[in-house]
Amino acid sequence: MQSASHVREKIRMGLWTSHTSGLADEHVQGNVVILPQALAGDFLRYCQRNPKPCPLLTVSEPGERKLPELGADIDICTDVPRYRVWRNGELVDEPSDITAIWRDDLVSFVIGCSFSFEQALMDAGLSLRHVDQGRNVAMFRTHIATQPAGPFCGPLVVSMRPMKAADAIRAVQVTSRFPNVHGAPVHIGDPSLIGIADLSKPDYGDAVDVLSDELPVFWACGVTPQAAIQQARPAFCITHAPGSMLIADLLNQQLASF
Amino acid sequence: MQSASHVREKIRMGLWTSHTSGLADEHVQGNVVILPQALAGDFLRYCQRNPKPCPLLTVSEPGERKLPELGADIDICTDVPRYRVWRNGELVDEPSDITAIWRDDLVSFVIGCSFSFEQALMDAGLSLRHVDQGRNVAMFRTHIATQPAGPFCGPLVVSMRPMKAADAIRAVQVTSRFPNVHGAPVHIGDPSLIGIADLSKPDYGDAVDVLSDELPVFWACGVTPQAAIQQARPAFCITHAPGSMLIADLLNQQLASF
Repeated sequence: MQSASHVREKIRMGLWTSHTSGLADEHVQGNVVILPQALAGDFLRYCQRNPKPCPLLTVSEPGERKLPELGADIDICTDVPRYRVWRNGELVDEPSDITAIWRDDLVSFVIGCSFSFEQALMDAGLSLRHVDQGRNVAMFRTHIATQPAGPFCGPLVVSMRPMKAADAIRAVQVTSRFPNVHGAPVHIGDPSLIGIADLSKPDYGDAVDVLSDELPVFWACGVTPQAAIQQARPAFCITHAPGSMLIADLLNQQLASF
Repeated sequence: MQSASHVREKIRMGLWTSHTSGLADEHVQGNVVILPQALAGDFLRYCQRNPKPCPLLTVSEPGERKLPELGADIDICTDVPRYRVWRNGELVDEPSDITAIWRDDLVSFVIGCSFSFEQALMDAGLSLRHVDQGRNVAMFRTHIATQPAGPFCGPLVVSMRPMKAADAIRAVQVTSRFPNVHGAPVHIGDPSLIGIADLSKPDYGDAVDVLSDELPVFWACGVTPQAAIQQARPAFCITHAPGSMLIADLLNQQLASF
């Protein structure tokens, strides 16, 4: 087990500016959204209304760079390997440090990530095809609308992992223990029932095969809030770059509900 | 909530000799198998090796008619509404009292029953089609062999309940809490993967429709040990008559694992 603070220190020094998959892998990793206080209330309400795709691990005070509940030394301006800066919904920069553009009205949101439950699934002896094949997980926009709040709205986005039925049952048990990182699946089986036309054509990530003795198993996905932000086109917003997450001191197992 | 001891008293007096579905429905009901001590070790091993279809609630000492762990006043000779007496695998009698044929070498097994988890599913707001339609649950022999012990062997028998995917996921969560009454499903989806050719032709119980937006969900079933006993053809054996169960003082919720 790598130390989370050691990995963060390297990231803070600019020595690691890439994806964090497999780094300090017993530790919780989080999706990051940073918004001006004027929009933060709406986004907080959006997360509260859509807890399966947007499970909030923490929200900062306006202007506060520290997130002590996730890690004693975390500085949100330096501890994500790569950020994305958005103006009016357009990507304008991908820095590895946001100290220079920090503002006293910015509120940081950290949202749970499927890395935590995938680790729990693998610890339970289940294999994940996209991990075995070194691909990104397959993600799909569904016809299920999220509950809107202010300018934030859009479809529920789901990730899909193919499994044999007995493994799917076990996966429901394992992921139910982790409501803070998307929890139990939202759908199993026929993709058309949630508005997915073709499993071989994911909207995000990479396609994986679903074998004839397998069921597609669908979980609410952290891309949902990103889609809602793109829909809202806020004047200013900072997120993590895809796959370059904030690594917390918190252990995945500390999120287990029982 | 009816009192279990009050219902048992009526049964003991011969005032109720029929099925127990819906009686004292917050209380655990059990499948009963009574075997001579010479076979009891094999059957106990069979149950231990096949805990999902044969979840043992209790086993008596040889000759002991009381089962105080299930109910202070239980007498296994009088407290089941209707028994079946088997000799060499043939049904020879269906008495409502077995005092006259009781022997000092008889060992009683009480095995958990799906009534307990069905109550938990309904308490969780799920509807069960066979209950709504006043039918018996549909049960099927699978191509999955149980682990044999002595003369006891045979296929895993499963019960099937059709559900929408979201309800099936919830049902995995709810029934996982009840390992002593069959626990989580053993299969979801394609029946042919477990050797079931036609869902409209159950081997036991009544057929129910599976709608196009539903998945068949399969649980290990307490008919499995009955099938193993028919296979073993013991010289002497007593069971409950189908649906006429032993009612315990224990509440279903007391079986919940968390």
